[in-house]
Amino acid sequence: MKNVVALAGGVGGAKLALGLYHLTEGGASQPPLIGDLSIFGNTGDDLEMFGVRICPDLDTLLYTLSGIVNPATGWGIDGDTTATLEMLKRYGENAWFWLGDQDFATHLLRTQLLRSGQTLTEVTAHLRAGLGLSCQLLPMCNEDVRTLVQTDEAGEISFQEYFVHRRAQDTVKGLRFAGAEAANVTPEVIKALAFTDLIVLCPSNPYLSIWPILAVPGMREVLSGADVPIVVVSPIVGGMALKGPAAAIMQTFGGEKEASALGVAKLYAGWASGFVLDSQDAAQSAEIEALGFKTLITNTVMRTLEDKTRLAAEILEYFG
Amino acid sequence: MKNVVALAGGVGGAKLALGLYHLTEGGASQPPLIGDLSIFGNTGDDLEMFGVRICPDLDTLLYTLSGIVNPATGWGIDGDTTATLEMLKRYGENAWFWLGDQDFATHLLRTQLLRSGQTLTEVTAHLRAGLGLSCQLLPMCNEDVRTLVQTDEAGEISFQEYFVHRRAQDTVKGLRFAGAEAANVTPEVIKALAFTDLIVLCPSNPYLSIWPILAVPGMREVLSGADVPIVVVSPIVGGMALKGPAAAIMQTFGGEKEASALGVAKLYAGWASGFVLDSQDAAQSAEIEALGFKTLITNTVMRTLEDKTRLAAEILEYFG
Repeated sequence: MKNVVALAGGVGGAKLALGLYHLTEGGASQPPLIGDLSIFGNTGDDLEMFGVRICPDLDTLLYTLSGIVNPATGWGIDGDTTATLEMLKRYGENAWFWLGDQDFATHLLRTQLLRSGQTLTEVTAHLRAGLGLSCQLLPMCNEDVRTLVQTDEAGEISFQEYFVHRRAQDTVKGLRFAGAEAANVTPEVIKALAFTDLIVLCPSNPYLSIWPILAVPGMREVLSGADVPIVVVSPIVGGMALKGPAAAIMQTFGGEKEASALGVAKLYAGWASGFVLDSQDAAQSAEIEALGFKTLITNTVMRTLEDKTRLAAEILEYFG
Repeated sequence: MKNVVALAGGVGGAKLALGLYHLTEGGASQPPLIGDLSIFGNTGDDLEMFGVRICPDLDTLLYTLSGIVNPATGWGIDGDTTATLEMLKRYGENAWFWLGDQDFATHLLRTQLLRSGQTLTEVTAHLRAGLGLSCQLLPMCNEDVRTLVQTDEAGEISFQEYFVHRRAQDTVKGLRFAGAEAANVTPEVIKALAFTDLIVLCPSNPYLSIWPILAVPGMREVLSGADVPIVVVSPIVGGMALKGPAAAIMQTFGGEKEASALGVAKLYAGWASGFVLDSQDAAQSAEIEALGFKTLITNTVMRTLEDKTRLAAEILEYFG
């Protein structure tokens, strides 16, 4: 049995996170292939609306791993309603961010516990335990870090303003992780890394999901310091993002002319040691290996739970 | 056209408040009998749950006057659901106070606006405008005042703990309005009183609904200072409370041996000048008049909107 740390953003990353979770005892794997699983979640996308703290990526992980996620969207709770949001609109509020009624329970409880003085790490542990989740879900830090997106059209805007309110229509010129300089790697992150056998970067947008995690001062170093394989799973397959705006951002930002597995590999070269790319992109494997990666070529498109669990097991077997 | 100020607690008082509102232009009366209507609401029953500020009496007035109240209960929003509350229970929360999903919108918005620095008076004006309500709804003060109920069984507990959580089962030994000494009559209350022709104490529990309002330092004096009739509508009819625990409390507390219209009149003797009692209690009218009241004997049991509007119109005609 191996211990695994996984870094994940939202919907795309949560798919592989679910596959990893299903290899643990709590995820009902018999026998379990993974002992301790700790998922580090991105909180750069967090926001406050109507006075409550919303952690979209942590929520997506919470709901996905506990099996209550809306399968049609990959986020939100299956069958959730929007009575609160509709009433807020009746009061004249501009409710552009989707918030379900069951979902509000998560935000209300989180906000209340944060105000009572608990850290976001403690609050998240309370929430995941409430949903019966047995793996660790750790925010990247306890401090507020906000991913700001620099655009020509709208200036510097919050990630959710860019992604949800303006539907990712703007050309991204740059990113800033406001507050990152004051953030700290948490004791829980350090402890998880002390016992891990493998670090997996789930197929999440490098710029918007993984960079904020790595922007926490010391995070890159503690990850490297674990002295175990760091494996990147490409979020780009056949030149397209599996989910979200990763491909568009890679084409316009960061010096890459095109979105590709190779382009992703270049972003992590010299730091990560393993790379998982899709069979469709097999032709790029030689160049990726030339960057110093040990590569695994397989089917990385995860549609079913079986796909997710199989990919997780392959990664564990090949790199673990 | 007369201007009216009404003092009201929750469900019982809201019935007459609705009758009064229906005599205004905004309440669709043609021609309107009431010009400006200002309702002073009790906030002694307020509470915080899950980090949001709940004002049960103001909410009941908001929902009743805007026509969205649940007619079966007299509080809450008609057809409201409890998805948020059920999810909070799933997280392990002890959710003993009913909170609907639409209802949560009111609490969320109120809490957010209070945190932004608005007074409760300003916030309440925003909420009632959002629901299209054209009369003024004024909290008794902007400061936090909490009605504490002293019991043998549970010690000193909050009103909602006594009334909702413990189902009003305890014998009430005394009441304390915590924070009242630091409260102030608001400019909006003073302004409403400057132009009023009549003050009506709606049929609300004297001890639990009207006393907290009168506990605001200076409130009794500014009401008297308006120099207009102050009319009490008895919440006790035929020895029983129209709604809530008023009768039981009168029997065990305050020196009254029995709950009666006369008992209510004694509580306001020397301060209020008018008294409305039900035809069932007509035999008590001589004693009530002997206390110095001008009395109106009529049917005070309000079941239909017509009952409410008729009673309001009778009071206006007789005392206005």
